[in-house]
Amino acid sequence: MAAEPPPRDPHLRRDGAWVGASVPRREDPRLLAGRGRFVDDITLPGMLHAQFVRSTEAHADLLAVDLDEVRATPGVVAAYTAADLDLADITAELDRPPHEFVPTAMPVLARGKVRYVGEPIAVVVAKDPYAAEDGVEAAVVEYAPLEPVVTDLGALAEDAPLVHAEAPRNTLVDVSLFATEGIDDVFASAPVVVEVRSKTGRQNALPLETRGVVADWDDRDEQLRVQTCSQVPHQVRTVLARCVGLDEKQVRVTVPDMGGGFGQKCVVGREEIAAAAAALRLRRPVKWIEDRRDALTAAFLAREQRYTVRAAFSADGEILGLDADVVCDMGAYSCYPFTAGIEPLMASAEMPSVYRVPAYRVRGRAVTTNKAPTAPYRGVSRPQYVMVVERIFEKAARALGMDAVELRRRNVITVFPYTGVNNITYDPGSYLESLDLCEATLREEGWFSRRSDDNKVIGIGFACFSERTGYGSGAFAQRKMQVVPGFDLSEIRMDLNGTVSVTTGTLSHGQSHETTMAQIVADRLGVPYDRVKIVQGDTDRITYGWGSFASRSITIGGSAVAAASVKLGDQLREIAAHLLSGDPEAAVLEDGGVRVGSSWLSYADIADVAYLKAHLLPKGVGPGLSATASFDVGGDGTFSNATHGCVVELDPGTGGVEILRYVCVEDCGVAIHPQVVEGQARGGIAQGIAGALFEEVRYDDAGQPLAPSFMEYKVPTAMEIPDVRIEHLETPCAFTENGAKGAGEGGTIGAPAAVLNAVNDALRHTGVELDDTPIPREAIFRALETS
Amino acid sequence: MAAEPPPRDPHLRRDGAWVGASVPRREDPRLLAGRGRFVDDITLPGMLHAQFVRSTEAHADLLAVDLDEVRATPGVVAAYTAADLDLADITAELDRPPHEFVPTAMPVLARGKVRYVGEPIAVVVAKDPYAAEDGVEAAVVEYAPLEPVVTDLGALAEDAPLVHAEAPRNTLVDVSLFATEGIDDVFASAPVVVEVRSKTGRQNALPLETRGVVADWDDRDEQLRVQTCSQVPHQVRTVLARCVGLDEKQVRVTVPDMGGGFGQKCVVGREEIAAAAAALRLRRPVKWIEDRRDALTAAFLAREQRYTVRAAFSADGEILGLDADVVCDMGAYSCYPFTAGIEPLMASAEMPSVYRVPAYRVRGRAVTTNKAPTAPYRGVSRPQYVMVVERIFEKAARALGMDAVELRRRNVITVFPYTGVNNITYDPGSYLESLDLCEATLREEGWFSRRSDDNKVIGIGFACFSERTGYGSGAFAQRKMQVVPGFDLSEIRMDLNGTVSVTTGTLSHGQSHETTMAQIVADRLGVPYDRVKIVQGDTDRITYGWGSFASRSITIGGSAVAAASVKLGDQLREIAAHLLSGDPEAAVLEDGGVRVGSSWLSYADIADVAYLKAHLLPKGVGPGLSATASFDVGGDGTFSNATHGCVVELDPGTGGVEILRYVCVEDCGVAIHPQVVEGQARGGIAQGIAGALFEEVRYDDAGQPLAPSFMEYKVPTAMEIPDVRIEHLETPCAFTENGAKGAGEGGTIGAPAAVLNAVNDALRHTGVELDDTPIPREAIFRALETS
Repeated sequence: MAAEPPPRDPHLRRDGAWVGASVPRREDPRLLAGRGRFVDDITLPGMLHAQFVRSTEAHADLLAVDLDEVRATPGVVAAYTAADLDLADITAELDRPPHEFVPTAMPVLARGKVRYVGEPIAVVVAKDPYAAEDGVEAAVVEYAPLEPVVTDLGALAEDAPLVHAEAPRNTLVDVSLFATEGIDDVFASAPVVVEVRSKTGRQNALPLETRGVVADWDDRDEQLRVQTCSQVPHQVRTVLARCVGLDEKQVRVTVPDMGGGFGQKCVVGREEIAAAAAALRLRRPVKWIEDRRDALTAAFLAREQRYTVRAAFSADGEILGLDADVVCDMGAYSCYPFTAGIEPLMASAEMPSVYRVPAYRVRGRAVTTNKAPTAPYRGVSRPQYVMVVERIFEKAARALGMDAVELRRRNVITVFPYTGVNNITYDPGSYLESLDLCEATLREEGWFSRRSDDNKVIGIGFACFSERTGYGSGAFAQRKMQVVPGFDLSEIRMDLNGTVSVTTGTLSHGQSHETTMAQIVADRLGVPYDRVKIVQGDTDRITYGWGSFASRSITIGGSAVAAASVKLGDQLREIAAHLLSGDPEAAVLEDGGVRVGSSWLSYADIADVAYLKAHLLPKGVGPGLSATASFDVGGDGTFSNATHGCVVELDPGTGGVEILRYVCVEDCGVAIHPQVVEGQARGGIAQGIAGALFEEVRYDDAGQPLAPSFMEYKVPTAMEIPDVRIEHLETPCAFTENGAKGAGEGGTIGAPAAVLNAVNDALRHTGVELDDTPIPREAIFRALETS
Repeated sequence: MAAEPPPRDPHLRRDGAWVGASVPRREDPRLLAGRGRFVDDITLPGMLHAQFVRSTEAHADLLAVDLDEVRATPGVVAAYTAADLDLADITAELDRPPHEFVPTAMPVLARGKVRYVGEPIAVVVAKDPYAAEDGVEAAVVEYAPLEPVVTDLGALAEDAPLVHAEAPRNTLVDVSLFATEGIDDVFASAPVVVEVRSKTGRQNALPLETRGVVADWDDRDEQLRVQTCSQVPHQVRTVLARCVGLDEKQVRVTVPDMGGGFGQKCVVGREEIAAAAAALRLRRPVKWIEDRRDALTAAFLAREQRYTVRAAFSADGEILGLDADVVCDMGAYSCYPFTAGIEPLMASAEMPSVYRVPAYRVRGRAVTTNKAPTAPYRGVSRPQYVMVVERIFEKAARALGMDAVELRRRNVITVFPYTGVNNITYDPGSYLESLDLCEATLREEGWFSRRSDDNKVIGIGFACFSERTGYGSGAFAQRKMQVVPGFDLSEIRMDLNGTVSVTTGTLSHGQSHETTMAQIVADRLGVPYDRVKIVQGDTDRITYGWGSFASRSITIGGSAVAAASVKLGDQLREIAAHLLSGDPEAAVLEDGGVRVGSSWLSYADIADVAYLKAHLLPKGVGPGLSATASFDVGGDGTFSNATHGCVVELDPGTGGVEILRYVCVEDCGVAIHPQVVEGQARGGIAQGIAGALFEEVRYDDAGQPLAPSFMEYKVPTAMEIPDVRIEHLETPCAFTENGAKGAGEGGTIGAPAAVLNAVNDALRHTGVELDDTPIPREAIFRALETS
């Protein structure tokens, strides 16, 4: 039975490892040749098309919704209001007392009241999308307008109208997680106290592919099949089953290729539920594809937060305390599964960032307003608090007359594991090393001399940060969330011909998991990575999956995949050793088979026994070749880190900002596929720069969105985004099965701070300091004009 | 968290068990309302239709296949010969030496030679089935006819032409499994020796739904999706992957509803492979639906066997020995996965049947002929050898001057476990009890007095048999088959709302597994059976499955399902005990939840923790609620048994046979759903009667099939099939997880013997004995005419 292995694969990296090699992406042949399948590519026989009657008012009582004309519109098959569909509401909760959390419900279609412009009121289903749009226009909605709440400060006002009349106040989350004893004394006696007041604009995560769904009822299998672009298919299944009153097993959610998500698709959308409910009612396939106007106004938005943070420093530059107040403008509804708590809790828990902060007080609030609801967007509060903390270090450096980089060096955490004032234990990272390397790189490239020599409007800014990635159950449970998305699962199978397929509960919406997960398996089983098929985005194919968000896919999903691979490898070794009369402990997986001493048996030969001749298996080894595993990150999770350095030049004539250079020194532990990591970093930095300089979803005083198209919502292009130099450090994670830390969000976290610091550095001679984003070009212009 | 359980379900049988209750079938609402989905119900966008150019010769060299006119036929999209598609052959082997087994290959499309009328030569793909038929008619095939081998005796002749020129002989299987030492002396000295020479006609399993397939290549997932009506989807995957050169993971085989299989669909068909290969080549969906003419002539046939069996008896009626020769006419090819060995091996191993036979010799052969190949058909050799053995008991009784029932009583196995001369250990059954009850039933009903009193043409016949069901790996390995289909797998999941879905590697082609498997789970988890969804017939949904044949679904598949349920139940008890601070050992699954002492927790509450709050789980219990299990029958498998009793009246005017009464006393251990068991028995008996009296696939001397339509192939209707009285005995199986033995084939096994014995009994006054089936009506007529 024993044979000789095939020749080694020439693509292998050092010691034959796939992990760490930037191998060709498995996804590319498909995506580059146009063979990808996105939701809008799906056509089912007899498929209908949905569009939504949406509120034109920011806040109003809904007096009447008349759909008679809609239903009479040529091509319209059906039109439903909330009353017609009778769906349960979407609800999300925190396990926190009433003074800390006020639960609210989000109806699938507005009922009784509308709370933002664009809120879905009725779903119109027609033979084609055009007829559906015509139908939408024929709807007659009668409103009794109410005073809208359009800003966070407006929501907090004593006499503010209530966005949710059944709630006692507009502040739905109000938590004070930390308050070090004696902190007031610390501030009172500190030689230097600086304060930053900063507001971040409302932003749109803006995936290239808008939201969408194709739903149909399978009459034979009694199953509602939902093909949708979601980061969290199992959560869509849960919410949909609850809303329409089906068992979970009667709902199958699958996700085809996705053109980005960035968090906007990690909460469950109302429209996909309504479209699926219409398909269930009509027993016909229904497709809904969000158009760009709806995506810009009615999709989940993000970011809008207000920080007031004071910091105390000793005379020699030691940080003594941090006192923070955070208000997050969450919009009209608290979304499933994360609730309105996600942003203030994240900011509150992690604001001390990479620094040894001995005293800490924080209050975090989320207020509801009559604007489109928010979802976690790449970074989730961290771009904002990092920006504030990094501004503090720049301000403090000026106050102390020190170099800001030097001031950071004195305060960053250097001894790990480190347990902070926020009760979080940080695993090892390269906080100091990344700062040093980032500064050295810019210095070597000559930017410091260009800045100081000649040009007053050139500025250099830095941002240090770490990022908890792959939250384990323990970390989420600390937040007292209703749901604790800690673990993930994997099932691995080896087929008769020795090839492997692996199911994961995470899914790629652009992160190349078909490649990177396959690399993880390939190393553990000693097979080429293209012999491994990754199965993702299908609620029927895996018991459960929390999906992909919070940079958890590789850290948690990848670890589950690794663990399952190891289990399968153990089976293979045991069977091979039995067949070759050798010792399982001495059996080695290599070259697509098992070596036991001088003999080698191919996986295909082992599979032949495991499936077709099970009577030859060793005792205690079951038939077939498969294994399942779960993984949950231990401790407080794992922290990626990075330092970003940015060089800008301001244009005194226009107030414009040109980014001359951008350096990112990142450490996500073991990089499974360095090119993919760099792609994640570059894309994130572009989104961070967009938030720092360009993008903002603004509303007028009546709550009407002012940026319903790309004419008004300024998205940077390749012209505005610089080439980014990326340097890697590698501090392997001890908690994960593969040493990897999350790499999906970091770019977005560091960029706003680095850009803002660089702009302020370029304005150093003007005395003007700018702390809000997007940085108003007019403010730069005025500062330079008057200086 | 604890709550009160809902009120008990009123449908429950004694002690609240679902197993044993004839609950409403889960399949019925769908099937009765026309919402079932059979292969021909499937339509895919852009789907093409295949038909086959088939051989008109039984044996010929294939000189040329000209498809030019085919391709020019309006609507024809493509036409392929074997050379065009270049597919690997379908092969199947036995691990036996060359003198016992000759391997042969079956090309997907004929190559170089044709070996039976109807053999596929080319596949024609067109826009609709009509154009495809037109295309088929335009094909020009040039043959050089060879002398055909049309009968088993012809195949065995010294100067017979070779069906497979590369094989040394037409006898592809020739095994002598047993030869008790001194058996010749036994026969030489025996007071009574009887001999039966019997030939069974070629039959068609004749599922209501003919074979068919819809195949399409998924360009995005790089997967060939095959929807087909097969009893063995994983075997179709294996063969297809080999033939077209794909990895197994690149092939997904699913099976929708099926209108019967009866074994004809437990081997892999050439047409489904060719149609799938065409879909792969064309990158378009291709459907092939077998028409009835092809189903009658070119589908897998069955049964044709010739027995020469002598038996020795002592003067007081003790059987002393059995000396048997079996020749099976397997047709033109050996099929995957069972090979030509399945019939002679089955007959050789199990011929001693329910009797204590001390000496046994057997030679079993399979010969190849120029007729459509055969597949295992419900019963697989057992209807034939049981018929022969039961004829022997009738003959011996006459020779001994004894009552034939009494003679059986003296010889049936009564002490279990019993290890026979054939090295098989039989688990407990009710061999004697079923015989007694069957005879007593007919006696009570007055049939014995009707027979003896007045009417010479009334006869009563009996048949006793047992049937190994659910062959384990050990049992199959004894046969030295290349593949050993012993085990099966199951995966069970519980969803967030406490409902259950269970995957099985078996699948229903009419046996109600969605109901019976759900009953098995329901009992083990304490939930109503309609809260359990059975997932079957999908190679992507389970690591492996051997499929449904050999009465293995409930014995092996059902046991795996039971084992997985028990594992899940253990998880539920452990979690509940932890949450309620109780003892897992004292936790009881009931009423859709777990009772621990005086507290009760619903499955939905447990699932909420297992999925959404995994940090609350007890240590060592992984997240999620799922379990996998495998099952393999131990020992030599388990034996169902039955006695059939039949009363016939002959019509002297026509030679016709009317069945006046039919009684079946069956024992398949624990009957999961008695009504389903009775349905299986009734259907099987109808097929057995069909073989005994009506159906035969005949060929002329040139190898041309003489029954290409229902005009010639006589299928009995409800007029010819009597109402059957069924009595149940229950000897629980000790090997399976649920006490059940197989129930799918028994009816077919007993009926030919019972009918043949009854006819001979009715002919007792004529001196004529008939031992072949179908019983020639003309022979009966002549016997009665001359008497």
